[in-house]
Amino acid sequence: MRLSEQQTPCLVLDKGKVAKNCARLHERLARLGVNLRPHGKTAKNIDALRLSLAGQSGGITVSTLREAEYYFEQGVTDIVYAVGIAPVKLARACGLVERGLGLAVILDSVAQAQAVSAQAQQHSVTLPVLIEIDCDGHRSGVVPDDPALLEIGRLLDRLDGVALRGVLTHAGESYNCRDTECIKALAVQERDMAVRCAVTLRADGLQCPVVSVGSTPTAMFAEDLTGVTEVRAGVFVFFDLFMAGLGVCEVQDIAVSVLTSVIGHQKRKGWVITDAGWMALSRDRGTAGQALDQGYGLVCDLDGKPIPDLIVEAVNQEHGIVADRSGKDLDWAQFPVGSMLRVLPNHACAVGAMHDRYQVVDGGTEVVGVWERVNGW
Amino acid sequence: MRLSEQQTPCLVLDKGKVAKNCARLHERLARLGVNLRPHGKTAKNIDALRLSLAGQSGGITVSTLREAEYYFEQGVTDIVYAVGIAPVKLARACGLVERGLGLAVILDSVAQAQAVSAQAQQHSVTLPVLIEIDCDGHRSGVVPDDPALLEIGRLLDRLDGVALRGVLTHAGESYNCRDTECIKALAVQERDMAVRCAVTLRADGLQCPVVSVGSTPTAMFAEDLTGVTEVRAGVFVFFDLFMAGLGVCEVQDIAVSVLTSVIGHQKRKGWVITDAGWMALSRDRGTAGQALDQGYGLVCDLDGKPIPDLIVEAVNQEHGIVADRSGKDLDWAQFPVGSMLRVLPNHACAVGAMHDRYQVVDGGTEVVGVWERVNGW
Repeated sequence: MRLSEQQTPCLVLDKGKVAKNCARLHERLARLGVNLRPHGKTAKNIDALRLSLAGQSGGITVSTLREAEYYFEQGVTDIVYAVGIAPVKLARACGLVERGLGLAVILDSVAQAQAVSAQAQQHSVTLPVLIEIDCDGHRSGVVPDDPALLEIGRLLDRLDGVALRGVLTHAGESYNCRDTECIKALAVQERDMAVRCAVTLRADGLQCPVVSVGSTPTAMFAEDLTGVTEVRAGVFVFFDLFMAGLGVCEVQDIAVSVLTSVIGHQKRKGWVITDAGWMALSRDRGTAGQALDQGYGLVCDLDGKPIPDLIVEAVNQEHGIVADRSGKDLDWAQFPVGSMLRVLPNHACAVGAMHDRYQVVDGGTEVVGVWERVNGW
Repeated sequence: MRLSEQQTPCLVLDKGKVAKNCARLHERLARLGVNLRPHGKTAKNIDALRLSLAGQSGGITVSTLREAEYYFEQGVTDIVYAVGIAPVKLARACGLVERGLGLAVILDSVAQAQAVSAQAQQHSVTLPVLIEIDCDGHRSGVVPDDPALLEIGRLLDRLDGVALRGVLTHAGESYNCRDTECIKALAVQERDMAVRCAVTLRADGLQCPVVSVGSTPTAMFAEDLTGVTEVRAGVFVFFDLFMAGLGVCEVQDIAVSVLTSVIGHQKRKGWVITDAGWMALSRDRGTAGQALDQGYGLVCDLDGKPIPDLIVEAVNQEHGIVADRSGKDLDWAQFPVGSMLRVLPNHACAVGAMHDRYQVVDGGTEVVGVWERVNGW
């Protein structure tokens, strides 16, 4: 089947680009002497995840227990669930450990440490735990000089049912950078903060084998990861317009796009109307704050070649309004009703969330497979 | 099971509020002497749709063929697919008609009319067609004085496989109103534009039995719908913060919320960290342009009671950052790790899209049912 025969809108994934993106980060990190622990939250699919493992047998990262269950069923046995553990999820997490999954959880409070220990003991399992470090004020975690770090570390050392595995941080602020110098500086800060916390714990006689850092921007620009044992990254498998705007990839590296049909024209307004609204593209407007605002996505022809200056200017639930960003009048013959376009997304994770599967291509427009996504929690 | 035992995040629906919202619009439209054709795109679920039909046997509206297939399987036999038809979807639409569904499509071009006719003839069916009217410059449709209106009407009258059913319009610009006077004015304009097109078609000797208008704001504020035969509306079944900001409903009318667990605190910053990020809340920021910006949602306690000034200030994929909108320090004892909150959404359709089911309550916090959603296309 060809893309032109697909029901629109649908999500298209170019697996050749995925493989290339993955190889690039693996090579980088190999040069820096550190392992990649890919994040399964972007693709939410085992085939894409396998490409991101690039043959290595190492573990992965997930953002939901549902991902953990799915990847475990697919044979992955080493998983970090990298969202601060909620007590209501502990019975389920312990159940996975009972069934043989090497599942580590993260936390940044005494209350969570106590809850994990209590639940793990009820299940007669031991949960590996990483202490979440706040390296840039982005969201969660303890800051390196917070006495809570040692307090939590000592508690995890003392309590049954938990095993202190190490520290984990995420330089989320790298997404707010405007240039690569900023990203490089944050990569240094992310490493330094994580390593400093590991040193603090070890100096207290605590075990801290793992020093885990990661965000796609810092992973792509870090130049020295001394002291770090693993890098987590997610969106690098697909890339997106936001990453291109950050200078982390090129537009042609973007592996995911939304296939859409032209359903009308508003010639007075210079609009091509399509059937990909926010339900297909997501409401993510990440590029709005960048130098080049890509609207709700950059429009390509059916072959995936960008049409200069053509963006999705506005969206309703099931309608996209496509226009030239400079207000230039369109060549209407190029967009007859029924013709198809492909939209590169602002944010790969967000556009993926709107779909339950990928139509997989490998260059060209022949669909060579359908890969399911594991959405939800 | 109680809400407090649910895996978070999840979507909670209060069916008593749904029933009340539906009764309110039915009463309004009954007074105005016009039928409601509820839109199935908000709930994407048959139980909620039945509440929105409120016992009437009339037809419904959908935004995807997948919704049409689902509602038809559930016994609904009169459906308008209210997105301009894409040629690639015609075989599927005709298949539904062959199986007995009364499915009307909409279009606003000669090219679409020809495509519908050609495909319908191949399937030996007749598709009812509504001509889409642009009443406010919002997106699709022909404007009333466009010669294309009569051209399309005459073509539909002449071609086999299609039957001109009437005209349809949607006052999407009502979402950009800042006050109810603006909404009332748009309701008049929506009605006048649709009726004028029907008059034009009838004066030409064409059949135009249906004059379909609709948007939740105009449906809630129209005062005279003379000449209109049906009103479509969707979001009124659940309502949301955007509608409350428009003055269309009260905050306590909002029937849908996201249940989330507290997973941490950043006391220096005044943040409660939760496990409902944009993956659970959507990226919709509809209230950003309103007088009261609700961030990514208004935070309530587990019982659904709003906590004054507490909003979701920022989101990552699986993290919500909750803070007091005035910057006031929080009473931390109110939000222990593991406690649960409920977030009222900016946009009911958008938050629904992030979930595959509803945990249904009827007041209170006891889960009385689980209703599935039919997402996708």
